[in-house]
Amino acid sequence: MSKIEVISLHKCFAGTVGYYKHWSEVNNCEMRFSAFLPAISKKRNVPVLTYLSGLTCTEENFTVKAGAYSHAARKGIAIIAPDTSPRGDDVPDEDTYDFGKGAGFYADATEDPWSKNYNMYSYITEELYNLTADNFPLNNDRHGIFGHSMGGHGALTIYLKNRKKYKSVSAFAPICAALKCEWGRRALSKYVGDDENNWLKYDASLLMRKCTDAAVNPEILIDQGLEDAFLNMSLLPHEFEEACNQVGQKLNVRYHEGYDHGYFFIQSFIKDHINHHAITLLD
Amino acid sequence: MSKIEVISLHKCFAGTVGYYKHWSEVNNCEMRFSAFLPAISKKRNVPVLTYLSGLTCTEENFTVKAGAYSHAARKGIAIIAPDTSPRGDDVPDEDTYDFGKGAGFYADATEDPWSKNYNMYSYITEELYNLTADNFPLNNDRHGIFGHSMGGHGALTIYLKNRKKYKSVSAFAPICAALKCEWGRRALSKYVGDDENNWLKYDASLLMRKCTDAAVNPEILIDQGLEDAFLNMSLLPHEFEEACNQVGQKLNVRYHEGYDHGYFFIQSFIKDHINHHAITLLD
Repeated sequence: MSKIEVISLHKCFAGTVGYYKHWSEVNNCEMRFSAFLPAISKKRNVPVLTYLSGLTCTEENFTVKAGAYSHAARKGIAIIAPDTSPRGDDVPDEDTYDFGKGAGFYADATEDPWSKNYNMYSYITEELYNLTADNFPLNNDRHGIFGHSMGGHGALTIYLKNRKKYKSVSAFAPICAALKCEWGRRALSKYVGDDENNWLKYDASLLMRKCTDAAVNPEILIDQGLEDAFLNMSLLPHEFEEACNQVGQKLNVRYHEGYDHGYFFIQSFIKDHINHHAITLLD
Repeated sequence: MSKIEVISLHKCFAGTVGYYKHWSEVNNCEMRFSAFLPAISKKRNVPVLTYLSGLTCTEENFTVKAGAYSHAARKGIAIIAPDTSPRGDDVPDEDTYDFGKGAGFYADATEDPWSKNYNMYSYITEELYNLTADNFPLNNDRHGIFGHSMGGHGALTIYLKNRKKYKSVSAFAPICAALKCEWGRRALSKYVGDDENNWLKYDASLLMRKCTDAAVNPEILIDQGLEDAFLNMSLLPHEFEEACNQVGQKLNVRYHEGYDHGYFFIQSFIKDHINHHAITLLD
């Protein structure tokens, strides 16, 4: 088991926000993440949320901008916020915001030169999932996942493939159908190659259509701003709505007039997301 | 009157957060600030808070990190967050974090080469004060001021010299006695010259000791973390406590175990500060 190292630690709403780093065996590089632990975590194992960020983000964006910790503290829930890709001078990259560093798409790469480092799917669902439970007093039996944009894509796809590991899911402005999104097609063609059959497991709407027992899932919450510049080209929430309708998945998509794609939108509705997960995780 | 220009505008908690820029006649450069306007401001003039940031900050730190807007929205209060100094290639600077750009100390410089641009006292209390009221539906009769560290120094000193303009004050980890603080002495010696008599008006504790009718002031709220690395060398809250005691100023200083100097500390208590100002501003 790789060790984690504290970068900095700050008291926040009576709990702690820490930035941590560790060597990732899965990504073959040093990775960073933040963790909020509510005060109650000193006494007993606490429910936990993994939050996945969007394109260009690091572990810091959510941590400083989302305003989540007052609500997580109130509910007694921990939040782990990882980086969005492998990092470091030895990690290959391209000079664009939507591929390479900052754009891991929560996939496991199979193609050179990406496959050595770009394994964010396994990193999130296995390495980080276990590492944080080993190092913090978390209760992985009460683990939910949520995210924003590319991270909303990550949350929905990871949830649908790992419903034993993650018990609840929600998303802000997620990429709902990666195979119909220019960002997703470009990233997947490079990370997992030209055969589109290998892309299917990274498309939230396609995965949902294959979910044969969706009726047992708790409701999924999605918030979407109507002034979001990426709504109609890249996010396509109606694709996910249709998929949920088809398989009987309970879904609450809320469209919000005037809100854009950024963290001022996210902070406006973060309380509802923490409360949404609390219904399942604290049950 | 100089015009303001929108840099970006974002819906947030049903109101708006905007970044703005304008030519400052007082500082002889372009200045930036952020403004949160609650939804109610479309209908009537709203109470307003000016928030002053600390060393190295711009208008952005508070805006993205403080988690203030949910509470400001709930109370129907606007918040203006200016930059901490003049900016631009033509503005003189020194290569240090605690003087020059990012460190205006909310003073009016009298010494060359600083006096042309470094007039943050007049900028806050006159130019920005009037500019925002001219451009937004604010009620300057219900205007409070607060800040952090150097900005807490700014809030306390500005309040004590302008109790007709600002009706309420609070601070996070303020520099309470600039003349006993290395940062303050260095900045004031350069901005206003070697004669310490000219520094007295920029020391919160000395100003408080001269307040002959402190009993009419509302209570002042100060929050201070006990793990704050600057507490005993630079902030000196006991100086302000003694001054308030001497003149009968109601003061609530809260010392918080485990909290440091950063925005995770600020966001933990920001709700109390908004509520503190609301008592006076919404009365």
